[in-house]
Amino acid sequence: MTRIALGIEYDGTGYVGWQRQKSGIGVQQRVEEAVTAVADEAVEVTCAGRTDAGVHASGQVAHFDTGVERSMRGWLLGINSNLPEDINVTFASSVSDTFHARFNAESRCYRYLILNRLVRSSLYRNRAWWIHEALDVDAMNAAATHLLGEHDFSAFRAAGCQASTPVREITALELTRRDNWLQLKVTANAFVQHMVRNITGTLVAVGRGEESAGWVKEVLLSRDRKAAGVAAPAHGLTLVHVRYPEAAGIPPANADTSVINVYDSAL
Amino acid sequence: MTRIALGIEYDGTGYVGWQRQKSGIGVQQRVEEAVTAVADEAVEVTCAGRTDAGVHASGQVAHFDTGVERSMRGWLLGINSNLPEDINVTFASSVSDTFHARFNAESRCYRYLILNRLVRSSLYRNRAWWIHEALDVDAMNAAATHLLGEHDFSAFRAAGCQASTPVREITALELTRRDNWLQLKVTANAFVQHMVRNITGTLVAVGRGEESAGWVKEVLLSRDRKAAGVAAPAHGLTLVHVRYPEAAGIPPANADTSVINVYDSAL
Repeated sequence: MTRIALGIEYDGTGYVGWQRQKSGIGVQQRVEEAVTAVADEAVEVTCAGRTDAGVHASGQVAHFDTGVERSMRGWLLGINSNLPEDINVTFASSVSDTFHARFNAESRCYRYLILNRLVRSSLYRNRAWWIHEALDVDAMNAAATHLLGEHDFSAFRAAGCQASTPVREITALELTRRDNWLQLKVTANAFVQHMVRNITGTLVAVGRGEESAGWVKEVLLSRDRKAAGVAAPAHGLTLVHVRYPEAAGIPPANADTSVINVYDSAL
Repeated sequence: MTRIALGIEYDGTGYVGWQRQKSGIGVQQRVEEAVTAVADEAVEVTCAGRTDAGVHASGQVAHFDTGVERSMRGWLLGINSNLPEDINVTFASSVSDTFHARFNAESRCYRYLILNRLVRSSLYRNRAWWIHEALDVDAMNAAATHLLGEHDFSAFRAAGCQASTPVREITALELTRRDNWLQLKVTANAFVQHMVRNITGTLVAVGRGEESAGWVKEVLLSRDRKAAGVAAPAHGLTLVHVRYPEAAGIPPANADTSVINVYDSAL
């Protein structure tokens, strides 16, 4: 039996999320079908971070076990040729049979993209949250500092979240502007459900001037989901990287697995 | 009667091109329907550069005449609310009644995007040409220099091209690499049909090592379409900017109308 780790990129627009739901098809199902086709045996796949409906990934990681012997290149190309065009595998690596995509992950990094201009963008309609009112990025960054470190994130946690604890540690949270694009990049050991979308929606309330930067600290301390801002829409969110201990043998973030980004560049 | 210029952005994936064809719907038709709905009178729209099926635009320009009085903001927001989500207007400007989106254009700039890595990208499947073999960008840039300036571009011209002359002047042609992304940006006074796609396909033959940089000069001088490489696919191409004399009052390339670009950024 061999355990294999996969890097997975997907456009989440057409899916109900990573997991299958009664309402439709999950990314996991398509990946399992493709791996099963290549292995010619039923295969189950376990991922690092279950994404919501409409959320994208450029750096999802998953693992599966198989008794079939194939080269890593054979798995990579074979699985891709069995996947629909909105999902693809970016790497395949043989890993230890104790490796676990979810439990061995040291941190996850998500990117949330906002288009901040008067008019919407047809080219990025499924990839960025369009906000036409001016946003104060300095105020949003000042507010974000209150969320850094280890906290009880109950105020930013979906009602249906299954996690055993609401305590998470955010190690990096940075908002940058390039022309009309705002990118929020957040790294944590793990996330409770809807955490990035709830944080983004809360910071946007500050950016719009509806709330002060200090209000975000009050929201955090309240541990009350009703205190926070509305969740940002799913389609602006992308899981860009999952980090593992070096010994696990997972490719580090590089050109092939890193965030794919957008910006406006003046001609 | 007022003449109004529009900036137009579109995802060309679902269209047969700017112009309506027997085979399906053109972008022009959707824009005319939206403007007609706002004006409440039949409106015809003339564009700067007719794009092929599957080609995108972030900086298309068009004009129309109307007897209806409205603020530019009213036109902008009204037209957008009548357009499908894969087309949007980026600006509306009142212009002189002698302004012509096509004949007054001093230059057009197109961007061609190539993803150069082993595996395809689901997130950019409709926006970049995926080439898995390594490309030699230095050789491609050396080849590109032969195309700069005024030439007879018959070798890079589609058989059905309606232009009265094959002579065009390329004022800028630059290929840049960022991680796995290659961007070809080309500016000319105008383009014959399929010119950017034929140039890109020809440069890729050089990048793959199938042909030398000097071969591109031979192709140009041959004036024979059969001498050039195969056309690059439409979906990697975007019309990013059309330049007019300053007096025309068209917004210059800026954060709202400039190219929207992609790159991999290491985490």
